[in-house]
Amino acid sequence: METKAQVLYDFTAEPGNNELSVGEGETITITNQNVGGGWIEAKNSRGEVGLVPEDYIEIKQAQPFTSGGNAASLDLSLFDSHIPTPAPASTAQTSNGNDPWAVFDNNASGGVSNNWAAQPEGTETGKTSSNAWHSGGHGHPQAYQGPDIYPYPCLIDLSGAEDDEWDEEWDDVKSSGGYAESDAGEGGAINRGGAHGSSMKIALNKFPGFSKSGPEVFLLSKQPAKGTKLPVYGGEVGPVWAYPDYQLDCVVADPKKGSKMYGLKSYIEYQVTPTTTNKPVNHRYKHFDWLYERLLDKFGSAIPIPCLPDKQVTGRFEEEFIKMRMERLQGWMSRMCRHPVISSSEVFQLFISYKDEKDWKTGKRKAEKDETVGVMIFSTIEPEGLPDLDLIEVEQKCEQFNRFTRAMDDGVKDLLTVGNEHWKRCTGPLPKEYQRIGKAFQNLSSVFTSSGYEGEAALTDALTAAGKTYEDIAQMVAEQPKKDLHFLMETNNEYKGLLGCFPDTIGVHKAAIEKVKEADKLVATSKITPSEKTTMSKRASTMSYALQAEMNHFHSNRIYDYNRVMQQYLEQQVKFYEMIAEKLRHAHSQFTTM
Amino acid sequence: METKAQVLYDFTAEPGNNELSVGEGETITITNQNVGGGWIEAKNSRGEVGLVPEDYIEIKQAQPFTSGGNAASLDLSLFDSHIPTPAPASTAQTSNGNDPWAVFDNNASGGVSNNWAAQPEGTETGKTSSNAWHSGGHGHPQAYQGPDIYPYPCLIDLSGAEDDEWDEEWDDVKSSGGYAESDAGEGGAINRGGAHGSSMKIALNKFPGFSKSGPEVFLLSKQPAKGTKLPVYGGEVGPVWAYPDYQLDCVVADPKKGSKMYGLKSYIEYQVTPTTTNKPVNHRYKHFDWLYERLLDKFGSAIPIPCLPDKQVTGRFEEEFIKMRMERLQGWMSRMCRHPVISSSEVFQLFISYKDEKDWKTGKRKAEKDETVGVMIFSTIEPEGLPDLDLIEVEQKCEQFNRFTRAMDDGVKDLLTVGNEHWKRCTGPLPKEYQRIGKAFQNLSSVFTSSGYEGEAALTDALTAAGKTYEDIAQMVAEQPKKDLHFLMETNNEYKGLLGCFPDTIGVHKAAIEKVKEADKLVATSKITPSEKTTMSKRASTMSYALQAEMNHFHSNRIYDYNRVMQQYLEQQVKFYEMIAEKLRHAHSQFTTM
Repeated sequence: METKAQVLYDFTAEPGNNELSVGEGETITITNQNVGGGWIEAKNSRGEVGLVPEDYIEIKQAQPFTSGGNAASLDLSLFDSHIPTPAPASTAQTSNGNDPWAVFDNNASGGVSNNWAAQPEGTETGKTSSNAWHSGGHGHPQAYQGPDIYPYPCLIDLSGAEDDEWDEEWDDVKSSGGYAESDAGEGGAINRGGAHGSSMKIALNKFPGFSKSGPEVFLLSKQPAKGTKLPVYGGEVGPVWAYPDYQLDCVVADPKKGSKMYGLKSYIEYQVTPTTTNKPVNHRYKHFDWLYERLLDKFGSAIPIPCLPDKQVTGRFEEEFIKMRMERLQGWMSRMCRHPVISSSEVFQLFISYKDEKDWKTGKRKAEKDETVGVMIFSTIEPEGLPDLDLIEVEQKCEQFNRFTRAMDDGVKDLLTVGNEHWKRCTGPLPKEYQRIGKAFQNLSSVFTSSGYEGEAALTDALTAAGKTYEDIAQMVAEQPKKDLHFLMETNNEYKGLLGCFPDTIGVHKAAIEKVKEADKLVATSKITPSEKTTMSKRASTMSYALQAEMNHFHSNRIYDYNRVMQQYLEQQVKFYEMIAEKLRHAHSQFTTM
Repeated sequence: METKAQVLYDFTAEPGNNELSVGEGETITITNQNVGGGWIEAKNSRGEVGLVPEDYIEIKQAQPFTSGGNAASLDLSLFDSHIPTPAPASTAQTSNGNDPWAVFDNNASGGVSNNWAAQPEGTETGKTSSNAWHSGGHGHPQAYQGPDIYPYPCLIDLSGAEDDEWDEEWDDVKSSGGYAESDAGEGGAINRGGAHGSSMKIALNKFPGFSKSGPEVFLLSKQPAKGTKLPVYGGEVGPVWAYPDYQLDCVVADPKKGSKMYGLKSYIEYQVTPTTTNKPVNHRYKHFDWLYERLLDKFGSAIPIPCLPDKQVTGRFEEEFIKMRMERLQGWMSRMCRHPVISSSEVFQLFISYKDEKDWKTGKRKAEKDETVGVMIFSTIEPEGLPDLDLIEVEQKCEQFNRFTRAMDDGVKDLLTVGNEHWKRCTGPLPKEYQRIGKAFQNLSSVFTSSGYEGEAALTDALTAAGKTYEDIAQMVAEQPKKDLHFLMETNNEYKGLLGCFPDTIGVHKAAIEKVKEADKLVATSKITPSEKTTMSKRASTMSYALQAEMNHFHSNRIYDYNRVMQQYLEQQVKFYEMIAEKLRHAHSQFTTM
């Protein structure tokens, strides 16, 4: 089968490297997808064949629809009463205009999420596959690229393989050629604003089917809850998750290059050591990505799961690239560890503490068959001793969280833009200027030395020292951002990614609220019973408790993170200015008072 | 008589202000030179009449040649033996090709000095008036504007009034309209590199006459020396001037606005208080300029007399303008006070300590009639106990000084360029960036405040404080150049002006050397006697002692000045960085450790 791909960015071939120049929007044919090293071989419309970076293209694969069948145990009888009878899973179905949930279809867009729009994902009638939460197919939101100058947005592979066959190239080391920084003059600064991808994506299906992942699946479910219960308690700050006594953390370290296929393909393996077992396990990037997918499927409706660091993290050198990716994987893992629901989940525990290869494979297969995914996660949530909330309260909370996350998203992006500018100045023109000042002093000193006048040495020595001091300062200025701004940027980048998940999470809640609002009408037209209406309302209350617990988790983490990063930033800034003052004090002392 | 003027810079008239737009190179006719406020009224070739800033034009006045007559007592018989018999003083004379000094005419340029060219000023045959050293007419060198971005180079009035009738506009307060900074966005920085004018000008005559100011006037003079003797001693560092026991200084302060002609014209009077008498005297800018002219006439061949601060010192406000001019007049006066020859001269003593108006007027008239001017100043120099130098030594010293002053001129201009850039950055983009960082922190803080989460206050208060700290830092950064870079720039500007005088001073010496070199030929052709040749050589040695004493004076002042200014600069820089560190330390302390 011929695989076509669309070119996302212009790429200019380097002569003699067997590369193929392609232009944005061009359609090419993949001739060899297994080249490795981040490349694929492709043919353009003129029949020219050559290598193209795989991240520059989007594969338009006409994948045959496969039935998941995992949701078979769900009681769908209620849906039958108000949505068209589902066609056999393998049959495509078109949208039905009489669907009472059609109100949620207003914003239906072709597989791309409208961020901040109150549109639950996966509810577009005729666009949801039966294995919505298991499908490997997932789009990439286009929002949150706003103020970024990071040239390679997070692209996620669309080949959608269901089985264990991972794309072996996923974590292959990038050739520096394809991902070298385009603006070498500005140093590393140009990439600072880049997010680790930006938002998660919940059930964006590409294939026709029927709605089964919208909140109605949970709101009207008659199915008994499966899986571990997730209690929500009334804490000091409001509803909170159950926090473990021991705060899990893990260390991502010791990246090792491995190879297979007789050395034709190489990959990096990271050592992950949880603080619980203190026993390291090894994982490749693709395993992290597998974990991300599982967490997204399972918890994504209730808990924002931030994207993994971009595959396209850039680095001029392999070492730099690996270090940067590792640092970001560490950040991602630590954030997951800090989440009481995620860190205690079976799949996460498997990832950090599998015993052996067999344990891992078994666990993997089990996780992939988990049925309590999508909105069904809410069925495991149990508000402990908390009264049911009425719809107005639920709606108010939801609106408040929406406003806040939106405002914080703006604030974080603003800080990132400013930080980006500052990074550029600190690594570019500013040190150059200090260097020029230093050179000018030294230059004047050497002119003075040539005067032939006696008693010149004291001044010229001091002037040379002052000049060298400004050269030192130039270097300090250029290196400082790595010591302080870097962490401020990384933290804000993490938050940008996290905040980018909220529109989806909040969207699920908004959709549920809308459905409960329509319940009266449904009762009046005998589509549902009054008792079912009560259940819906109660379940919306449960969803709201989950959202509130999650927001409170977010807030407490945010306060911790910003406190820590601001302290770190200011501490380093103080050190920086003190060191400059000290250097200048020394330079000053070398001038003689006359 | 119709007065024509050439337009030096493009000027665009402001509508409704009765101004006239003119273009560089255009010739206009002056219709009213007494408009005042820095303006003249002019007519262009299309007959349009309007106001033009007087500093944008150069008046091409066909001034009638006036005999000075002051040099009548000089014995010129010797010149008669080798240069053409001078025509009556009132008659213009053209260049004579047989002139043995014609070697110095190679670089003759129309009234504009070629800096650093070995060409003595005023030696162009047929271009020197008999009152060369008394003429009010003086050009303006075009060099040393190099790296400047100061838009209005020092232009000196060319009306050439000989008598006591000063141009009353000379020290009138400039209207801010005509001299406001063109680039308001960059703050005051754009003018920092501007010199206080750049070099002195020795006898650049616009009118045909005969050479009487070249070094030959002194080298072959039979006239007994007049005026105070100026001894040169052998000091530790070589030949030195006689330094007084008490180092004179004076304070320029207390500018007062006065007016005359029923308030139609206003001027500023400065109080000058010498440390000797401690009795203040008042002087207007035009008096300082008169003093400059007298010092230039009298000492200019031996001692570089730096230009007065520009008339065009800019300031957006009258107060700023007056303050800046005063500061620079102070710098100029202090430099003059520090010079042993100048500070002890009659004319300088008159300026700083005249008893009353009558004393001032009498002294003024006397000074204007001083005959020991131009190269004749060398006749008063008496090397005490120093052996005659041979010509090779004289030439070597001269070359060395030429090389040094040239190199230092480059070094100083380099530093000024760099300083200028730095000033712009510190007052423009850098504080804007710190302000944006501060705003971004405060913005995030106010978003956090809106979270509704309990226990938010500690973080938001600290974050707001950190934001305000960066706003404070922004202001500190913007104001810092006035506290340190300003003095570094002013000192280097002073030196730039001083160094700009050296090509002329050194040129006089080079010319003398050339003449002594030709003495053999002159003896051979019986133009001069062997005894006269010996006298010439001896006098060149005296000139060299004067130059060496002056260079040693320059060096010792330079070492003092640069030591002082660098100490001041670094001290302020240390304070600046310490203050930033302190502010950040305080901001840091407001974050709570969790």
